[in-house]
Amino acid sequence: MPDAPSPEAILATIEQYCARFSAGDRDGWLALWAEDATMEDPVGSPVKHGRDAVAEFYDGSVGGADAVSLTLDGEPVVCGDQAAFRFEIRPTLGGTTFSMIAIDVMTFQAADDGTAMIASQRAFVDFTTMAPAE
Amino acid sequence: MPDAPSPEAILATIEQYCARFSAGDRDGWLALWAEDATMEDPVGSPVKHGRDAVAEFYDGSVGGADAVSLTLDGEPVVCGDQAAFRFEIRPTLGGTTFSMIAIDVMTFQAADDGTAMIASQRAFVDFTTMAPAE
Repeated sequence: MPDAPSPEAILATIEQYCARFSAGDRDGWLALWAEDATMEDPVGSPVKHGRDAVAEFYDGSVGGADAVSLTLDGEPVVCGDQAAFRFEIRPTLGGTTFSMIAIDVMTFQAADDGTAMIASQRAFVDFTTMAPAE
Repeated sequence: MPDAPSPEAILATIEQYCARFSAGDRDGWLALWAEDATMEDPVGSPVKHGRDAVAEFYDGSVGGADAVSLTLDGEPVVCGDQAAFRFEIRPTLGGTTFSMIAIDVMTFQAADDGTAMIASQRAFVDFTTMAPAE
């Protein structure tokens, strides 16, 4: 059993979570997730289990949009093997870019190389707050 | 069993959570919590059970400080009976005011009068990020 990931490893994974999603790097983004990760996105929806289910979510999220960018809004707060962070979601749909704020809560586990894999994710996001981006 | 609280009731409770704590309104702040609420503050510490344990936490948090203010940093994100929000904690200790950012995750239950009571709280806060306020 590897040790818990370091705060630096957790921060790096969160940065890549936003960067790779924004770049459309599907494989790179999925590689951040543990094989048996869970995902509750948005909070209150049924929990998805495993990287294949996360991949389905990715395809569904990105599929209907011209582009979707995720941008960290301030520093994540790391507590042990868990973290919470706020970020801006900017989907471009039919040529118009929208914006909404979300807060993700994650737990992490250390990979053999010391990187932090996402073990669970819960996304606080309210689609009724989506508005045209300024 | 009352219905789930409305988003408006949840937002009102979060605002009072910050306002009453900042005002030193101990009884008013504790009244926001359900009798059997749980508290994990900070995340990773043992979970406290019940309003009496929350009161002990309040006394310990406020006791050593000249004042502690909590200020919402942006709009909370509400998902059903849950919410996450970022806020600034500004404790004044020995005449110096410090600042750090935290993210709370809460679940709520409806009281008979429709107000939203805090049923559980998890606080992402990293005391190593505390710095003198600007």
